[in-house]
Amino acid sequence: MTVVRVVNPNTTASMTATISRAARAVALPGTVVEAVNPDTGPASIESHYDEALAVPGLLAEIARAGADGHVIACFGDPGLDAARELASGPVVGIAEAAMHAASLLGRGFSVVTTLARTEGRAWDLARAYGFGERCRGVHSCEIPVLALETDPGARAVITSVCRRALETDGSDAIVLGCAGMADLCGEISAAVGVPVVDGVAAATVLVESLVRLGLSTGKLGEFARPPVKPYAGILQPWALTGSSNCPDPPV
Amino acid sequence: MTVVRVVNPNTTASMTATISRAARAVALPGTVVEAVNPDTGPASIESHYDEALAVPGLLAEIARAGADGHVIACFGDPGLDAARELASGPVVGIAEAAMHAASLLGRGFSVVTTLARTEGRAWDLARAYGFGERCRGVHSCEIPVLALETDPGARAVITSVCRRALETDGSDAIVLGCAGMADLCGEISAAVGVPVVDGVAAATVLVESLVRLGLSTGKLGEFARPPVKPYAGILQPWALTGSSNCPDPPV
Amino acid sequence: MTVVRVVNPNTTASMTATISRAARAVALPGTVVEAVNPDTGPASIESHYDEALAVPGLLAEIARAGADGHVIACFGDPGLDAARELASGPVVGIAEAAMHAASLLGRGFSVVTTLARTEGRAWDLARAYGFGERCRGVHSCEIPVLALETDPGARAVITSVCRRALETDGSDAIVLGCAGMADLCGEISAAVGVPVVDGVAAATVLVESLVRLGLSTGKLGEFARPPVKPYAGILQPWALTGSSNCPDPPV
Amino acid sequence: MTVVRVVNPNTTASMTATISRAARAVALPGTVVEAVNPDTGPASIESHYDEALAVPGLLAEIARAGADGHVIACFGDPGLDAARELASGPVVGIAEAAMHAASLLGRGFSVVTTLARTEGRAWDLARAYGFGERCRGVHSCEIPVLALETDPGARAVITSVCRRALETDGSDAIVLGCAGMADLCGEISAAVGVPVVDGVAAATVLVESLVRLGLSTGKLGEFARPPVKPYAGILQPWALTGSSNCPDPPV
Amino acid sequence: MTVVRVVNPNTTASMTATISRAARAVALPGTVVEAVNPDTGPASIESHYDEALAVPGLLAEIARAGADGHVIACFGDPGLDAARELASGPVVGIAEAAMHAASLLGRGFSVVTTLARTEGRAWDLARAYGFGERCRGVHSCEIPVLALETDPGARAVITSVCRRALETDGSDAIVLGCAGMADLCGEISAAVGVPVVDGVAAATVLVESLVRLGLSTGKLGEFARPPVKPYAGILQPWALTGSSNCPDPPV
Amino acid sequence: MTVVRVVNPNTTASMTATISRAARAVALPGTVVEAVNPDTGPASIESHYDEALAVPGLLAEIARAGADGHVIACFGDPGLDAARELASGPVVGIAEAAMHAASLLGRGFSVVTTLARTEGRAWDLARAYGFGERCRGVHSCEIPVLALETDPGARAVITSVCRRALETDGSDAIVLGCAGMADLCGEISAAVGVPVVDGVAAATVLVESLVRLGLSTGKLGEFARPPVKPYAGILQPWALTGSSNCPDPPV
Repeated sequence: MTVVRVVNPNTTASMTATISRAARAVALPGTVVEAVNPDTGPASIESHYDEALAVPGLLAEIARAGADGHVIACFGDPGLDAARELASGPVVGIAEAAMHAASLLGRGFSVVTTLARTEGRAWDLARAYGFGERCRGVHSCEIPVLALETDPGARAVITSVCRRALETDGSDAIVLGCAGMADLCGEISAAVGVPVVDGVAAATVLVESLVRLGLSTGKLGEFARPPVKPYAGILQPWALTGSSNCPDPPV
Repeated sequence: MTVVRVVNPNTTASMTATISRAARAVALPGTVVEAVNPDTGPASIESHYDEALAVPGLLAEIARAGADGHVIACFGDPGLDAARELASGPVVGIAEAAMHAASLLGRGFSVVTTLARTEGRAWDLARAYGFGERCRGVHSCEIPVLALETDPGARAVITSVCRRALETDGSDAIVLGCAGMADLCGEISAAVGVPVVDGVAAATVLVESLVRLGLSTGKLGEFARPPVKPYAGILQPWALTGSSNCPDPPV
Repeated sequence: MTVVRVVNPNTTASMTATISRAARAVALPGTVVEAVNPDTGPASIESHYDEALAVPGLLAEIARAGADGHVIACFGDPGLDAARELASGPVVGIAEAAMHAASLLGRGFSVVTTLARTEGRAWDLARAYGFGERCRGVHSCEIPVLALETDPGARAVITSVCRRALETDGSDAIVLGCAGMADLCGEISAAVGVPVVDGVAAATVLVESLVRLGLSTGKLGEFARPPVKPYAGILQPWALTGSSNCPDPPV
Repeated sequence: MTVVRVVNPNTTASMTATISRAARAVALPGTVVEAVNPDTGPASIESHYDEALAVPGLLAEIARAGADGHVIACFGDPGLDAARELASGPVVGIAEAAMHAASLLGRGFSVVTTLARTEGRAWDLARAYGFGERCRGVHSCEIPVLALETDPGARAVITSVCRRALETDGSDAIVLGCAGMADLCGEISAAVGVPVVDGVAAATVLVESLVRLGLSTGKLGEFARPPVKPYAGILQPWALTGSSNCPDPPV
Repeated sequence: MTVVRVVNPNTTASMTATISRAARAVALPGTVVEAVNPDTGPASIESHYDEALAVPGLLAEIARAGADGHVIACFGDPGLDAARELASGPVVGIAEAAMHAASLLGRGFSVVTTLARTEGRAWDLARAYGFGERCRGVHSCEIPVLALETDPGARAVITSVCRRALETDGSDAIVLGCAGMADLCGEISAAVGVPVVDGVAAATVLVESLVRLGLSTGKLGEFARPPVKPYAGILQPWALTGSSNCPDPPV
Repeated sequence: MTVVRVVNPNTTASMTATISRAARAVALPGTVVEAVNPDTGPASIESHYDEALAVPGLLAEIARAGADGHVIACFGDPGLDAARELASGPVVGIAEAAMHAASLLGRGFSVVTTLARTEGRAWDLARAYGFGERCRGVHSCEIPVLALETDPGARAVITSVCRRALETDGSDAIVLGCAGMADLCGEISAAVGVPVVDGVAAATVLVESLVRLGLSTGKLGEFARPPVKPYAGILQPWALTGSSNCPDPPV
């Protein structure tokens, strides 16, 4: 049995439920999907500031024992490097997973995301992961994250932005740039005629795959367990759990 | 039931058997691994010339009906673009899969391969896939491909080149650069203390994952079914099968 | 009168004092240097995890009213994008400032930093700021951040790593990669014969300069004031201050 | 006397004749242009699949003795690396030659090609040759390769795409992206006012130039003669000729 | 007291006066701004040819003793490398200074310049300085340099090109690409709602800052004093002054 | 009859003679090689400063009527952009020509040059021409330019630096980085076993080739004839000749 903990780094439980459904829909029979969100942090992540405030709560979820692998279920992949230091199993972000998957489906992909102000972060990630050329465009719908659940017109807008992205970019695939869009893939793919990648599903399967392959973050260098030290006035996830999730590196 | 056809593009059956074992060892219970090699082509692939002559036979195997996804099991990923045009399901090369996996395990990886003359091809692929910065070094053992099976000293040499690669490059993971090295991962990883990625296993799991996610090559542009035309004096795989593996693209 | 708030994002007061001295030593007569550190966070920043936990406290200091510009005085430039969203005046990180300054002093520079595990972050920043080619090497002394103050041998080690960096990289300048090294510049520059840049001094002068030029972060797009929303169970700096440091963007 | 073998890798003799005319029109008096095409392979090259099936026949033509240098006369430069391994004299592809020439005529060039599905390959080549920035756009006419000879409207369409490319890209030169366009250069250049480069002519002159300079592929590493080995069930060009075109490398 | 010599490399005194005003407006009380132009050279710089002919006169101004730092006040930053060899103090070009400043104000900037034929040079500089990705567009007004002073419609045109640049590029800041635009910053910034950077002001403050920090060009390698040798039939600035501005490098 | 003017931009006649021999040795029977040097400028070019002072004299030689194409025979390719504006025929620099030729001979080349202080310029050019990855190393002999003619030990030193460069870089070819090394190619190539490219020969043949192909600099944009304007106190090459070498661009 493999436990994949899927952490929604914002504090909106209904969005965690959407994410959970998307992860469970693709998980293997032997996989337990633990979809959680922290108690602390922003209701949604739509700025660098939101992202920064979401990370401590997210890391507390990563540091809790009991998971074989982790998914960070926000398209900005917040706290990914720190999570790789903390966890002994593999950790994958949903933007990372979606971009990796999309780059296997042709020459180029387009990202369709929520607010224009998050486009810069999507480009940052694409370049950091090596997909600066394969990512041909980042397009926004100007729909706030939480409105994805409630706005009855959201699907039509997103589909039409996807169609425009394909025309502009000549891409072979679409990446949906928000965990809240997880359940729209099939519908949009049928409408626009190219594969549409949801990061939650992609990351869940990718973490399962790494666990099956026996692969996890290399621990000899940058991603070794963080040095122990005093933390003032702040929840320290690692100390909190009373048990480290990080084995010693091989000697 | 998912059929993953793993094509060894050279014509050496014992190497196909090694590859088959590596793929089956990680495949899901519900997956049928069909490990095959073409009748035509070089005994091993150690030059651009070998690669070129291996591709027609490889494509014949891709074009045969009956597979849900394909793995190209040679570290040069020969014929990958053409295979994506032919197949309706996903196609992944083992260099591609290994590099994608390794890039999720830290900041940088090193490739350890057979002959020095293949290093250029490994760099080409790393850059084409977007991993020009994550790939920190390509190191060769100067062991010919087929000697991997018979040379009793090969393991020791490869392990020592891996160790040297880690020291030189400061990498977080090792990628083994030949399908014939598929069964050495565990042993070397234990010896050198970082994750070691075998492309055959990584690609098999990755193709399974894409099938589970319902994702395949985008067919609206560059990777649409090739235009039909006369082929003189050469086995044409597609015509040969009498049935296309490629559905029409959505209209 | 210009107020430059220099935020040491760790919680070690003696290091804040060192930083304060370095900033005051170069500030203009009309500049008030406000060197502060948050109450919450790690004692020093030596991992992605430390950096993540330092950011909320740092942002609280950025959000407090009263400063014309801000310096983030940790070589990882933690929270820089979020700080630019929050503040109405310019915000500069010390790695950013030091790399900008060093790139004006010749063709290439070398970074000399504390622990090897932070080298990856230094490369990340160099590339993100556009200095991936000008940064010719990142070299570490394996001296923990807080030992810089107490280890009597630290200076000799750092000087010798600087000398080795120059030989290896053929650089025209050295960047010291830790706020705790701020008072070593003159001594090392005299010893090695090239300019040595301390980020605290460079950032202080750079923020003063931007204020004098009337320049601040563009507020029409990505760095506009973050959307207002609920933050659960966490200190929200912005709400906390009762007064926003962010004017409305032009209409 | 210098023999330049210009290999049209498809099997359409009328296109070989067009290519031959273009090569002879620029060749020196002392140069013998041997324009040939293989017996095996596709009638035209319009996909990665066509390209893959054209390569074995192409390599047989490269491996035949008697040439001082070779041109690969298809804009995808198929089999170029393998040809460099086989031949002892210089080998140049027409895309390669045209892009090199165009990059000497100003800051940027535009490529005008046949089908949109080949644009990706053109970008691949531009980046591989180092011209990722100088190549400002790849534009297609949606005219199939063989229709270039028969479609009376082709010239007008190509000219108008060239004109649009110049407007969009602000380029200093045009590269025609198909060997079948070889005879349109003068006409289009007169019409659009910038130099227009045909790859067949450019490659022929470039190969002659390398021969005159006594320069050929370096043979100490990646492009040394391929290792000898068994090839099953496939025409092996090299063995076939009974005489190697490859001298031993210097000892 | 710090002397900053601001060299307008063209020979138009009224433009030197404009530049002088812009520099003095931001200089510190203790700074003497020495705005000069050479006796020899073109009336304005609008081509690579103009730039080449401006450099010897510019270097004569750099080589004259008496300055603590230098600004090269033409947006092509002509002669910058040579000036760094000659001068012992820091030297900064106005394109360089403006691009550095703009890159601190957000994620991307747009350049608005005079003639379209100078766009290539602006891109060259952006890439050379490391800002190839941050520079999102270079836009020209088609106003000749000297018409900036006399054309009453110039302001309106420039403002409208700035507005269009922002829309097209989604930038966070504007860089004005000509020393002759130095006095338009405030007005345009008010009109378009993002920071607008003038290179003359930015460079003046940046040179002052480097002097205050005790930083100057590294003199151990590429930018050491040029080797002494005969110069035929040409004004040799350095010989002319009878006194070198370059101290010996540290031994 | 084609006239190729080969301009040695320094004022040392004996070096012009060496260059002339190298160009004539490869020129076609119908080509007149006009090897010249200006009256004004430095005796050799070993710094950015020397390069800057050489350019006006060089441009005067470019602007004189009577040549069908030009070679700039100094490895820094000084004044190349300006020369392209002035001349109506093609202009090629020897670093440019050598790097283009070398990149056709394999995957990577090494540059071997005179003084270490010129290495930066060689890298600048390699990157500007698109060969930042193909150029694997720049190595210097620390032999001053003019000593190449007189120092009896120069050949042995250069050969040994070439050998070391090959070992370090694993290159397929060597580029000699100084016009004064033009006559060493054959000898060194025989010694080290890979092709060795001399820029003077390569550029001469390349200019001839462009003339034969009817190709020259595009004149619709950046490289159009420079705008006419007053030039104070300086030899203005173009005015001087009384006749422009630049035809009007097509209307």
